[in-house]
Amino acid sequence: MREKTFYIGVDLGATKTLAVLYDEDMGLIAQARAKTPSDKGGDAILASIVELASEACAQAGLDVSKVKAVGVAVPAPIDRESGTIIQAPNMGIKDYPMGKKLAKALGASSFLENDVRAGVWGEFRKGALRGYKNAVGIFVGTGIGGGILLDGKLWGGSHGHAGEIGHMILQEGGAVCGCGQYGCLEALASRSAMAKDAVAAIASGKSPLLMERYGTDFRKMKSSVFEYALSEKDEAIQKIIARSAFWVGIGMANLVNVLDPEAIVLGGGVIARFGDFYKKRAEESMKEHMLSGFAKGVKVLVSELGDLAVPTGAALSAKEAMG
Amino acid sequence: MREKTFYIGVDLGATKTLAVLYDEDMGLIAQARAKTPSDKGGDAILASIVELASEACAQAGLDVSKVKAVGVAVPAPIDRESGTIIQAPNMGIKDYPMGKKLAKALGASSFLENDVRAGVWGEFRKGALRGYKNAVGIFVGTGIGGGILLDGKLWGGSHGHAGEIGHMILQEGGAVCGCGQYGCLEALASRSAMAKDAVAAIASGKSPLLMERYGTDFRKMKSSVFEYALSEKDEAIQKIIARSAFWVGIGMANLVNVLDPEAIVLGGGVIARFGDFYKKRAEESMKEHMLSGFAKGVKVLVSELGDLAVPTGAALSAKEAMG
Repeated sequence: MREKTFYIGVDLGATKTLAVLYDEDMGLIAQARAKTPSDKGGDAILASIVELASEACAQAGLDVSKVKAVGVAVPAPIDRESGTIIQAPNMGIKDYPMGKKLAKALGASSFLENDVRAGVWGEFRKGALRGYKNAVGIFVGTGIGGGILLDGKLWGGSHGHAGEIGHMILQEGGAVCGCGQYGCLEALASRSAMAKDAVAAIASGKSPLLMERYGTDFRKMKSSVFEYALSEKDEAIQKIIARSAFWVGIGMANLVNVLDPEAIVLGGGVIARFGDFYKKRAEESMKEHMLSGFAKGVKVLVSELGDLAVPTGAALSAKEAMG
Repeated sequence: MREKTFYIGVDLGATKTLAVLYDEDMGLIAQARAKTPSDKGGDAILASIVELASEACAQAGLDVSKVKAVGVAVPAPIDRESGTIIQAPNMGIKDYPMGKKLAKALGASSFLENDVRAGVWGEFRKGALRGYKNAVGIFVGTGIGGGILLDGKLWGGSHGHAGEIGHMILQEGGAVCGCGQYGCLEALASRSAMAKDAVAAIASGKSPLLMERYGTDFRKMKSSVFEYALSEKDEAIQKIIARSAFWVGIGMANLVNVLDPEAIVLGGGVIARFGDFYKKRAEESMKEHMLSGFAKGVKVLVSELGDLAVPTGAALSAKEAMG
């Protein structure tokens, strides 16, 4: 009998890290999460990943040596070949050989992937996109990322850069984006964009509910705050959430006009919290803004794997990269 | 010795039709053009194509029966399988089986293709895109069309609709587009968009040069008028041409961010007339609006085949479709 093999998928975020242990069919066995030591640099982050991996294995009573491959999904530019994180300023990382160091520390093969691409791959292989060969994933969180699936493969582009749909300009001269441009989808619809609108709305007396509970500190405007406001039917905040969906819908329309996918999957923290309220409005806006003949051909889906989309895709990519 | 074979590529436009006769290596042998009988419907247009094909063959002293395949490029939705033009209101055509009828009339096999896709294919096989497997073509004329080349193949999408880059929304709420939306690239940058700005500028006294020569009739604002104004360094009209390039540059930036192509080729009537003046401004705008790390990786090219890009691609597609 062949020995069972195991895989680990890591979602390395600037605020927290999630490590998930899978069996060879990507059945979930155990998971562990912790704050990312973003202020301590590459080696500290590496140590934290190793610790989380060990913790997940310990939960399952499994020796770490049984792990064949570990995939790390990163919200930053990476070099897949060399397993290097090129630049992640918000984690104090520059040209860090995470892949090699992690492989050595765990005695397993390793693979680095972009976080949203990993998420789209997870949804394609094990989630909402099963059966759709041509699709686009839009993940809305602090930023907005994308992944493009063509003929059942992630489209990387000529230099591995493809899928930066958060930086499509939808309103030339619009809101300032972190990338330096104006009117990018991300600047119009990400949680950061929503937080800007929220603090202004609260400060101008439009949401007494949030004023009392959270005040007007931008950094406090997490997804949970919006979720609370939505559950309380706070009108000012509902409008802000709907506005994000409106812009995401325009981005979806542009992508459908350009790529003609079978499906679009919405994922990420914002979508996870606002589910149907958000999806309904995003789909309406998409249909309103696309070529009218195209609407019937595209299915709009919500991530099935949620928080696990990214680590699942990372673990799968690591397994598949072993050949 | 094997008998020589010949191919015809037709660029069927709403105003004029161009038929080009090629040898089997797509060497140009002869061409014929005429006004398209757009007001007379499908059968008249078919007859006109047959006549132009015969005329091109006659120029070369060639019997029409030597033509193996004819490709027709159409600025309208088509069904490639059945060779049907689905809808071309500006030519009075609806569900017209152009492919079958043309094949019968000429005794050759036939193939229908979208005009801009044909143009991109022509540039890839015989023009500016030789050697670039991943590229985007943007053709600016009365409208704006696109073609996407991935891994050396035209990307059709899930329903054959891909490449409608003229209907990417770049300025939500902006200028009205023929498609019914607001702020599409086509509504901001096509020759029709330029003509709107030009008549307003002329009417308000900003271009005495054009006022004297052409007046303020929208239908008179053809590419030749803009070309004349550019050659005379008319400032108001230069600004309008530069503005079109500015918006096309934003469209290019979005496509680079999403698809990461090796090259972008600019083609169509507007580009053919304004060449370097236009390309320079479009490329500047692209670099200004894209993620800064991407700029080095993408080459901006101008169509080499010009008016022949579309018929060359149509003839090639027809040849290749024969298997």
